[in-house]
Amino acid sequence: MARLRFQISMSLDGFVAGPNQSEENPLGEGGMQLHEWAFRLAAWREPHGEPGGEVNASTKVVEESLENIGATVMGRKMFGGSGAWGDDPWEGWWGEDPPFHTPVFIVTHHARPPVAKLGGTTFTFVTDGIESALEQARSAAGGKDVAVGGGASVAQQYMKAGLVDEMQIHLVPVLLGGGARLFDNLDGAKPGLECVGSVAAPGVTHLTYRVT
Amino acid sequence: MARLRFQISMSLDGFVAGPNQSEENPLGEGGMQLHEWAFRLAAWREPHGEPGGEVNASTKVVEESLENIGATVMGRKMFGGSGAWGDDPWEGWWGEDPPFHTPVFIVTHHARPPVAKLGGTTFTFVTDGIESALEQARSAAGGKDVAVGGGASVAQQYMKAGLVDEMQIHLVPVLLGGGARLFDNLDGAKPGLECVGSVAAPGVTHLTYRVT
Repeated sequence: MARLRFQISMSLDGFVAGPNQSEENPLGEGGMQLHEWAFRLAAWREPHGEPGGEVNASTKVVEESLENIGATVMGRKMFGGSGAWGDDPWEGWWGEDPPFHTPVFIVTHHARPPVAKLGGTTFTFVTDGIESALEQARSAAGGKDVAVGGGASVAQQYMKAGLVDEMQIHLVPVLLGGGARLFDNLDGAKPGLECVGSVAAPGVTHLTYRVT
Repeated sequence: MARLRFQISMSLDGFVAGPNQSEENPLGEGGMQLHEWAFRLAAWREPHGEPGGEVNASTKVVEESLENIGATVMGRKMFGGSGAWGDDPWEGWWGEDPPFHTPVFIVTHHARPPVAKLGGTTFTFVTDGIESALEQARSAAGGKDVAVGGGASVAQQYMKAGLVDEMQIHLVPVLLGGGARLFDNLDGAKPGLECVGSVAAPGVTHLTYRVT
């Protein structure tokens, strides 16, 4: 059975974005620190069109996180734009050659036609909820896994609905002291979890949990 | 330099005790799950006077956490009792042969004479604050490290004051959804942290952080 997989960087005090998030600073104050372990990697830089970078214990983790992904579901903020698309809608954060290389299904309240990009990434906008987005993604994935591309809000909705099969947390040794918590808004949902992998790497510990 | 070391079990959503803590249930609802990894260990059961138990990857972690500890500082709740000791004060949770085997300094608002127990554990009550308790503990430790025995409140006070040198978090794959958060009440203190150890074991991941 193809799985719904989800990965995110989290501070040791449980935040996936810092305080005072805004359209201009979606990661909030200090939130960039959560991703520094990735920015330094060649394995992250190359698919994002950046030269250089290093190889370390995180490299294999990043490579494995991309393996066997056939489609991606994503929240509207992660795609980018205000959501009320208008006549000439913004085409998102991701540029002409987005790093997904799969069909991407965006959960939004506002319909718009699909957008095709280079490298196999297509953006399809789904207005009838997270279950529909997942169903369309599974269908497009051709038996491979579906990734939750983020952000935290859509990940929480999938967790709350009991639909996540595997969760990888990149635990970063920093305290943000405020912001968006990964495990808020679950309305008492408490999925059983088993830790099935742990990798120590520079600036991060990668923890993989299977939902039981 | 002797270090101030602190270890605690924390849920993946950041709680060190569950909701609705009380004198009768100091761990709160579901909080016992945070300690199951330890209760199953022979290395935990033996010093607590319980027979049996298993040996697994946590064993070495527990053994190392006890090494080179010369004294312990502790909050009043962790010792036990209401704090207003009265004429015949309760002698705490820990019985006649407590598992510390060191001098223990208890931060409290209410003075009382020291209590000596079997096996080298003495309880000394300190009414002039966490710095004084630490100073007395360092003096008693004879060059060895000082452990923060808990609970979360006194650990937070030492973190906020910038006095903690090393922190070991036993990260348990459970969501408690509410309760006491380890990293609350820090008033914006954000110690720099470096992860210096990570051990995967049944029911827990042991993460050691050095304060930089």
